[in-house]
Amino acid sequence: MSHPFDEAIALAPCGDGVFEGRTHAGYGNMVGPFGGITASTLLHAAWLHPQRQGEPLALTVNFAGPVVDGPFRVGARALRTNRSTQHWQLELLQNDAPAASASAVFGLRRDTWGDTEIVPPPADPGTPVPVKGLSPRVAWPQRYEMHFVKGGWPDFAQPQEEPADSHSELWIRDQPPRPLDHLALAAICDAFYPRIFRRRQRFTPAGTVTLSTYFHAGAAALAAQGTRAVLGRARAQHFGGGYFDQTAEIWGDDRRLLAVSHQMVYFKD
Amino acid sequence: MSHPFDEAIALAPCGDGVFEGRTHAGYGNMVGPFGGITASTLLHAAWLHPQRQGEPLALTVNFAGPVVDGPFRVGARALRTNRSTQHWQLELLQNDAPAASASAVFGLRRDTWGDTEIVPPPADPGTPVPVKGLSPRVAWPQRYEMHFVKGGWPDFAQPQEEPADSHSELWIRDQPPRPLDHLALAAICDAFYPRIFRRRQRFTPAGTVTLSTYFHAGAAALAAQGTRAVLGRARAQHFGGGYFDQTAEIWGDDRRLLAVSHQMVYFKD
Repeated sequence: MSHPFDEAIALAPCGDGVFEGRTHAGYGNMVGPFGGITASTLLHAAWLHPQRQGEPLALTVNFAGPVVDGPFRVGARALRTNRSTQHWQLELLQNDAPAASASAVFGLRRDTWGDTEIVPPPADPGTPVPVKGLSPRVAWPQRYEMHFVKGGWPDFAQPQEEPADSHSELWIRDQPPRPLDHLALAAICDAFYPRIFRRRQRFTPAGTVTLSTYFHAGAAALAAQGTRAVLGRARAQHFGGGYFDQTAEIWGDDRRLLAVSHQMVYFKD
Repeated sequence: MSHPFDEAIALAPCGDGVFEGRTHAGYGNMVGPFGGITASTLLHAAWLHPQRQGEPLALTVNFAGPVVDGPFRVGARALRTNRSTQHWQLELLQNDAPAASASAVFGLRRDTWGDTEIVPPPADPGTPVPVKGLSPRVAWPQRYEMHFVKGGWPDFAQPQEEPADSHSELWIRDQPPRPLDHLALAAICDAFYPRIFRRRQRFTPAGTVTLSTYFHAGAAALAAQGTRAVLGRARAQHFGGGYFDQTAEIWGDDRRLLAVSHQMVYFKD
């Protein structure tokens, strides 16, 4: 049996860098699919392309317009291939109109000196926090096992006092468990609910405008993580003018930094 | 007399979203131009495009290959225009080959609730730190007045002990002074020397692979900053496998967050 994540990002090659896919009800969001699954699907097109060299280093996805439930096409074009890096341009089209675009950098990792300057959250085990009060079509949170250490999903029916910050920390993995790879990691980087929900403890219409993820771990390190939960941390830096940013870190259970991610989000208050 | 920054990002429209430009010796780097001036030039193409709506919210630039000294063409295409945001695809070509690509989001800022969760560095005045030992063709640092509070440009001829982190803080403005706008700010976000120079106190070949900047201030706030220096802070989060990331914050002298920026950098040790 295939995993729902692999079903959701499945792409059928049509030749010439064009692929066909279809949205998956299991990863539905308020409007269209969960942004993380769209990000993974775009990355997947570059991954599947016969010209692809190396593994993902960076991904930027621009959410240009709503993705509607149903079929879509993804175009992947290798802009340039260098000795260490390869640059991709990606586009998701519905009815020939771009709903999302992306750029990806693939490359070869070499053994070099290394250091991590930021520090992971204390590795408390975390407690399962059920997600309440979502519209039935918001299915994607059920595709993840989420154990929050801090900043769990707010219950808008019983709002808490506004916290001083928008931080969340949680243990997260695919549900059902699936071995970690760059495709799953790209989606997990976007699996933090909008920081304004946490900061203001009220429902606020919000949508990611652009999302960039930097992969710090190679395929072997992700394979070693296997199906065990990773530790995520997210917070906003600034809200104002109808937009906020949100940064995330994903740590392995061996306290190794796997990825960092940054996004700009539209909100309406 | 025009400012060297405006000369460097100057673009002549050729119609159909294509512009012609030329590298500027005043912003030369080790190989080709300073990445920040390439980023601003790409943003400038969207800015100049007759279909452009609103002001910059986000910019991602992918440095696909070396930009060589001489002429180039920039193509700008509005992918999609929504009520609040407009998505752009940009490409810098030399001899018909892409040397850099970019995506930009423009949009309208509205009066909303706001908050800044991160805290600016203490606003010490900083002391001018001369940049020594650079190759004569590395001209771009002379286009900025830089007063370092912490983590000044290392002198590779007289290396210091390796510091515990890669942090730098500095007051920075264009030299000669120029009123701040999103174009100048986009370049300033990339004006932090590679963090591995700081962390290891030795010259290490390094080049930005991809750079994303989120603009938190609107045109009016930038105009209010005028020609006064802004306070920048930069640090790496992780080094390893031949790559490191680097984040930056740019604060106004009224302690308002103007922009945040993130990049993935290739290095060779």
